[in-house]
Amino acid sequence: MCQLLGMNCNVPTDICFSFEGFSARGGKTDDHSDGWGIAFFEGKGCRLFIDAKASISSPIAEVVRCYPIHSTHVIAHIRKATQGEISLENCHPFRRELWGRYWVFAHNGDLPDFHPQSMGFYHAVGKTDSERAFCLILETLRQRFPEGQPPVKELYLALREITDLISLYGVFNYLLSEGEHFFAHCSTKLSYIVRQAPFAAAHLIDQDVTVDFQELTTPSDRVAVIATTPLTDNEVWTQIQPGELLVFQDGLPLKFD
Amino acid sequence: MCQLLGMNCNVPTDICFSFEGFSARGGKTDDHSDGWGIAFFEGKGCRLFIDAKASISSPIAEVVRCYPIHSTHVIAHIRKATQGEISLENCHPFRRELWGRYWVFAHNGDLPDFHPQSMGFYHAVGKTDSERAFCLILETLRQRFPEGQPPVKELYLALREITDLISLYGVFNYLLSEGEHFFAHCSTKLSYIVRQAPFAAAHLIDQDVTVDFQELTTPSDRVAVIATTPLTDNEVWTQIQPGELLVFQDGLPLKFD
Repeated sequence: MCQLLGMNCNVPTDICFSFEGFSARGGKTDDHSDGWGIAFFEGKGCRLFIDAKASISSPIAEVVRCYPIHSTHVIAHIRKATQGEISLENCHPFRRELWGRYWVFAHNGDLPDFHPQSMGFYHAVGKTDSERAFCLILETLRQRFPEGQPPVKELYLALREITDLISLYGVFNYLLSEGEHFFAHCSTKLSYIVRQAPFAAAHLIDQDVTVDFQELTTPSDRVAVIATTPLTDNEVWTQIQPGELLVFQDGLPLKFD
Repeated sequence: MCQLLGMNCNVPTDICFSFEGFSARGGKTDDHSDGWGIAFFEGKGCRLFIDAKASISSPIAEVVRCYPIHSTHVIAHIRKATQGEISLENCHPFRRELWGRYWVFAHNGDLPDFHPQSMGFYHAVGKTDSERAFCLILETLRQRFPEGQPPVKELYLALREITDLISLYGVFNYLLSEGEHFFAHCSTKLSYIVRQAPFAAAHLIDQDVTVDFQELTTPSDRVAVIATTPLTDNEVWTQIQPGELLVFQDGLPLKFD
């Protein structure tokens, strides 16, 4: 299994604090040490860092921890291999283009016996169930909306449908974004917290680090952090319900059910 | 305009030395300071670092200069914007998936009035002529070989054809790779050098740095470095002829004309 970390905000924000705690789970406070990755959207642009090394010993993870990259949509992943060997092409997040936007996807779970027939366009490069699921999602959306990206509600409903289908194969917690919307699906385990004014101090579980967000924010900032398990021990995190698909926008979860 | 740097080797090699000189042109010894990027293949996996900052002041470029990433296929680019604003989505190299492999592309030149109709699959995310040209190349290859990747000679001939067509629009020097083959097209300016035994010392033009490759190599190593202009001042570089498309494999250029 693996762990997921996501962030969605109404203003570009750095993820240094959360990534500090999260990346410790990649070999220090937990054993998700078979690679890691993180994607940052900046407008339509997207940076993707991946490494087959453990996140605690990766020089690139060190840059991500220390060099504040400001972004409104971030997806990170630390890997404990279940399917597919430890190699770069099997590291999440995965990225493809659809409708002239980059789409980024990371998965926590296991989908045994999930081998969908390729329907034409998107092919997995690596050997993970996760990348195959991502390809099927994009293929489905492309076929459903060949003219381009639909309004978010239609997109949500189509995604809901294909997500339910894939979930029949196993555990399918995931984060998905195209830099505008931020989807979070809970199959078994996924939590989030929304930080907004009045901001307070937060203390990491995995490292003895405290940040006082009041010193770093303006009153209108809003930041949602989504993670497999809570990253802080002095805040109240909300568990997403199994089977629930949320869309975050500007740091707030929406639902269309 | 921009500058290109590529490397193709028969064993995974780091590009620290060449990138040291090349990245100096991104704001220090030359003015290509509107962003930079570099892609490294490791097997089928591919890392891509891009930044809209100048390469001399980018913390991520610093990691690339100092942290030896070993790869057989590397494509790098420093940008001086001609079309498309200075932003992350306009930074080269660009990456897409075709036939279950990542393809990476970087362009030096300018293609005024190049606005091909989208033929269906690949859409540019940014606003550059370069990304549009890359999308057209992949679209053409996909349509020509819908069953999957053909033998290299057929691939070369198809690429030759679409390259000639796009070259009618302007200056189209480019590097293209899917991690197995390495294509280099010269429209106006592109040089290469093949380093192999007996190895000697090389001295950069853009920085006062010398490396003695004999100390770092084994006798069977072979490395081709391709660049817009030579990076060293004590070696003989070969100019690729305008209109020529080379394929490098294991550090050697092949031709199929």
